[in-house]
This record gives sequence, structure tokens and C-alpha cells, in this order.
Amino acid sequence: MKKVLPRDKLNQAGPPSPVVLVTCVDRDGSPNIITLGMFMNVSISPPMVCIGVAPERYSHDLIKDQGEFAVNVPTTDIIDEMHRCGVTSGRDTDKFASTGLTPIPAQRIRSPLIKECYGHLECRVVQAHTCGDHTLFVGEVVAASVDEEVLEDGRLVLTKAKPVVQKNWSYHTVKLP
Amino acid sequence: MKKVLPRDKLNQAGPPSPVVLVTCVDRDGSPNIITLGMFMNVSISPPMVCIGVAPERYSHDLIKDQGEFAVNVPTTDIIDEMHRCGVTSGRDTDKFASTGLTPIPAQRIRSPLIKECYGHLECRVVQAHTCGDHTLFVGEVVAASVDEEVLEDGRLVLTKAKPVVQKNWSYHTVKLP
Repeated sequence: MKKVLPRDKLNQAGPPSPVVLVTCVDRDGSPNIITLGMFMNVSISPPMVCIGVAPERYSHDLIKDQGEFAVNVPTTDIIDEMHRCGVTSGRDTDKFASTGLTPIPAQRIRSPLIKECYGHLECRVVQAHTCGDHTLFVGEVVAASVDEEVLEDGRLVLTKAKPVVQKNWSYHTVKLP
Repeated sequence: MKKVLPRDKLNQAGPPSPVVLVTCVDRDGSPNIITLGMFMNVSISPPMVCIGVAPERYSHDLIKDQGEFAVNVPTTDIIDEMHRCGVTSGRDTDKFASTGLTPIPAQRIRSPLIKECYGHLECRVVQAHTCGDHTLFVGEVVAASVDEEVLEDGRLVLTKAKPVVQKNWSYHTVKLP
């Protein structure tokens, strides 16, 4: 039977979303990490992605002002660290220090990448739109890198990468049907 | 070891994406179905979602002209039908007829819903942005429904719903880590 959902529960009818760790920097280069469930690809050529960030989040103005961010894709091995990056604020916490995650330099942007993540998309902001209670940042992917161990014939193998997908912040990974 | 990816392979560094079946109608009410890997939530209140659709797809102008679409979330039980909706065009195929999927009426929009999907988000287009080779449609969710069987205490349970996530159109579902 189909159940009609009230307005505050509409999201229960949707699909799961991937979880990503977005890194960014302030004017002085100090980095932050934010855990996001709002990510999608939006263009193949040129490669572009979207993220949704609430304006009250510390990372929001860093991304807006510096015009760049990196999407780091966590694995189930760092679920605890990933979760902590989502429930603390970079206003009062150095999240690299508090989680033990390792910053490594990006190729084309100032924001560091997170070594423990399997994949990294370095993005420059090309559009920003206010959509309800979030800002939709559209980034052009200017460089990317990935752990060699999760590739086969140059293609990502999800069951090796063990990405995290969620609904209601209940964390899952993937398997073949 | 981190491997730097060439520009045409950047996507191999990203996360998986959920697969959704978007339904829409033409001026006369004839429906179409398009399989999309570009979907995300973008606002909680008001509830809003984004989809990415290439301009050359038959559904693109239907969504643009009629200003509405429905997001239907498939389960692993209909992977074959889902795949066929992605590799045929509504210009020359009635996808409900060719797949055997069942149209049911929506609550608030003209586009039908797909009965075999576990969840349904009825959307009115509130923004459209050209992002590289796709159009980003932002829809406000005006109604939603879900199969009662996939809920527990009013919340979606992913392992009951068996949604589809993909990378390189290799279809997976979810499991607890």
C-alpha cells in the first residue's frame, strides 16, 4: 500500500544519498572539513558537480569567499571520523587534528585533500544558487585523484572502494544485488 | 598510492549515485520515463530536490515546458525495466507499455507515478540552470508517497527498500557496513 507522507516527512520517500567529506580553506589557508549528504554530478564535459551547503555552516562562507572546494569520498573504514566531521563545527574545532585524518596537498587548489578517502575531486565554484534553506554550489572539477587499489582497468570498483551511502544518517555501503 | 586521473576519467574518483526514474508528461498528458543518475536533495524546508537532464533527452523539454516531474525510486526488483528506460527514447517508445511498469495517478501533478517503485516525490520546477552539458532542474516537492512496507516507525529502512546505486552504470544496492 502507498502511504501519503506529511510535509515534514517527504524525504522518507526518496533514494539514499552518497556521503562526502568536503574540504575548504579560509583566507589564510586554514582548512576545514564538512560532511555532506547533498552531492551529485551535473555535467560530464566539462566535468561539474553540485553540493548543497546550509548558509549557517562554517564552511559555507569559506567556499563562497575562496571559490573552491574538494570533494573527498570516505570509505566505511572512517565512518566514525566522517560522522564527527558532521556534528562538530570548524568555528571552534580543527577537524583534521580532532579526527586524526591526514591532510595532503591538492594538485590545483589550496584546499587540502583527505588521504584516508579513496577519491578526490578538486573543484572551482562556477555557480551558486539559493535553493530553499541551502546554497547549491556548482563546481567545475579541475583535477581528480583516486586510490589505485580501487580501480580495475581504470574504472572504479564500488565493492573495493566501500563508499558510504545514507538515509536519515544511517550509514550503509554497497553490494551487488 | 594516489593516481592522478586524466580529464575524461575524473568521474572515477567520485562517489556512487542513486538511480531514479523520473516521470513527466507532454502537453496532452502522454507520459514518459527517464532513468537518471543525477539526483540530490537540496533543501529541507521547503523540501526541494535537483535533477540533471541533458538537453537532447526527450524528457528535457517535457519537464521544462510542463514545469513538473515526479521522482520514482526503483528497487532491485525492477533493474531490467529501469535499465531499459535509460537506453530507449520516449520519442519513439511508450516506456510504460514496453516495460510493463504500471502508471498510477499522482496527488498534486499530472505526471503519473510508477507503482513498482517504493517512493515517489511529486515536484514543481522552481529553478532551471544550464550547468555544462546538462540542465539542472530544481523542484519543490509538493507531495510524496511511499510503500508502507519499507517504513519502520515512519522512517525509511534502506535494507527493506533495496534502492539502486550505481557507478559506470554498474548497479548495486545497499547493506549495513
